[in-house]
Amino acid sequence: MNRKYTVAIAGATGAVGAEMLKVLEERNFPVASLKLLASARSAGKKIKFCGEDVTVEELRHDSFNGVDIALFSAGGSLSKEFRDSVVSSGTLMIDNSSAFRMDDDVPLIIPEVNAHDMKKHKGVIANPNCSTIIMLIAVAPLHRKFEIRRIVASTYQAASGAGAKGMEELISQSRAVLDGETAVPSVFVHPIAFNLIPQIDTFLDNGYTREEMKMVYESRKILGCQELMVSCTCVRVPVVRAHSIALNLEFETGASPDMVREVLAESQGVEIVDDPSAHKYPMPLDASDKVNIFAGRIRQDISLPDSKGIDMFISGDQVIKGAALNTVQIAELALSSEQ
Amino acid sequence: MNRKYTVAIAGATGAVGAEMLKVLEERNFPVASLKLLASARSAGKKIKFCGEDVTVEELRHDSFNGVDIALFSAGGSLSKEFRDSVVSSGTLMIDNSSAFRMDDDVPLIIPEVNAHDMKKHKGVIANPNCSTIIMLIAVAPLHRKFEIRRIVASTYQAASGAGAKGMEELISQSRAVLDGETAVPSVFVHPIAFNLIPQIDTFLDNGYTREEMKMVYESRKILGCQELMVSCTCVRVPVVRAHSIALNLEFETGASPDMVREVLAESQGVEIVDDPSAHKYPMPLDASDKVNIFAGRIRQDISLPDSKGIDMFISGDQVIKGAALNTVQIAELALSSEQ
Repeated sequence: MNRKYTVAIAGATGAVGAEMLKVLEERNFPVASLKLLASARSAGKKIKFCGEDVTVEELRHDSFNGVDIALFSAGGSLSKEFRDSVVSSGTLMIDNSSAFRMDDDVPLIIPEVNAHDMKKHKGVIANPNCSTIIMLIAVAPLHRKFEIRRIVASTYQAASGAGAKGMEELISQSRAVLDGETAVPSVFVHPIAFNLIPQIDTFLDNGYTREEMKMVYESRKILGCQELMVSCTCVRVPVVRAHSIALNLEFETGASPDMVREVLAESQGVEIVDDPSAHKYPMPLDASDKVNIFAGRIRQDISLPDSKGIDMFISGDQVIKGAALNTVQIAELALSSEQ
Repeated sequence: MNRKYTVAIAGATGAVGAEMLKVLEERNFPVASLKLLASARSAGKKIKFCGEDVTVEELRHDSFNGVDIALFSAGGSLSKEFRDSVVSSGTLMIDNSSAFRMDDDVPLIIPEVNAHDMKKHKGVIANPNCSTIIMLIAVAPLHRKFEIRRIVASTYQAASGAGAKGMEELISQSRAVLDGETAVPSVFVHPIAFNLIPQIDTFLDNGYTREEMKMVYESRKILGCQELMVSCTCVRVPVVRAHSIALNLEFETGASPDMVREVLAESQGVEIVDDPSAHKYPMPLDASDKVNIFAGRIRQDISLPDSKGIDMFISGDQVIKGAALNTVQIAELALSSEQ
């Protein structure tokens, strides 16, 4: 008999929370019972799971008694506030915020990439930043094969990175602009409709944003390679829910586009969409609502000698693999290693 | 007494043609008389210039008698078809298409960058690709000071790159999508509303697009540096009329962000917008309808040693400096060297 588990979702009413419910259902996660947790304001709301109404409860320190796994997607400050209560209840915390990602005793996991790091956990496992996940799904297999020296990444990040409210703001602002009204920003610092914002998260002293540095530090931790050189520019674009990244990769070992395609074709979580003559390449509209990261525009970089460089363009659903799916996959891994 | 000139605009009814009229007017270009040329379909249409109606005429081989300067923005095939008629009329042709850009006897000019190349012309001067102009306005002064070895550029290109029809398609498609209808692409290969298309122009055998390779070859010609290494990824984004570029620059000589800012502050055509703490950086909405290219997010690249790398983000109006203004500036240069 397969064991079933009591699962809690903290931040159940957000965009990622809603997607977690969908993913748990679609993947037949062995849920014995489900606790949906959110702020007091959302308590009492009913959300469907497997055809049944589940009532949202207020997230409290005593919410975790008897809970096996808690999936957190309620922001970093709540993750920090509730960590001790969760762990002391014997609940495994899988956290989607950036609160603990760089902590030594918290594994930072992309199941397709570094499942072996899971065993180090002490009650908390972190889900990486969405752009890091989307990038490494395509980059990690290439790093293992050709050893990546340096990555230059320019992102094209969807409004969903700022949650359901971000997506709503893009839609309502676009409508306002088309109606000749002024776009009034609230979630984003500037208007996002028909615009680009080259700032995601706050700025650090080195001139990079936190988002850009997350991609650097998290990639090094996940790949176990502190020497990896990465420079990112993170840009918000008026796209609803899939992130894209223009990647320039420099390898230690030369690699042709065909060699790269061969490696990616055998890799988990990535789908090659790369037939330029048929106008096929990754696009965020196509990657939306998809489980896999799309990789294409794979070509030999003409600016580096000895076939040491590859350029490619990738797109992946920010809410699914960038957040909800990866979190649930971590939970599945935890269960499988338990058995 | 200052001489005035008979000026023709071929492609007068397009987005760039309309902007050329505006630029000629705003800059008090010494126009004695103006000929507006377009397809037979547009002939008879009236367009205002300096308060007076000018009737659009059909573009014909005998259109250039007595014309001093012809500004062409009617597509490469018409430029090729009419070149001989223009030049044999003693008319100076300034061409905005890609038809002659790489020809040895055709100077490719950005007035702020390589005005000295003008004198080589034999009746035809080419206006560079819009992304090349926008990039080099920021990059050329840095190249002169620190010698650029390698550029990795990811573009975020506006719908205006496909002309007035491109802008209209973005707007009408966005409205359709918001109304729950399907986006039907016509100008672009795929839907552009709330999407990205990582293809501009057609594909070449090396996997790059023509647009991407234009940025490579044109930059080398304009900077007079065949050794310059450039790799581009060109992406169409749902923005109306300003292009942006995430630039990763590798220098021969180390350069700090302050040194870069100092050089750009003294350069023509570029405006530094770089105060992250006040959320100020280049954005296409702000750069639209502006003459200058905005440069910001200037920071030391953390992935290269010895201060050899700089990352920056730039935005510039595609229709103005990317096309119409640069063409008119070339005409002004031609007149000034004549006097």
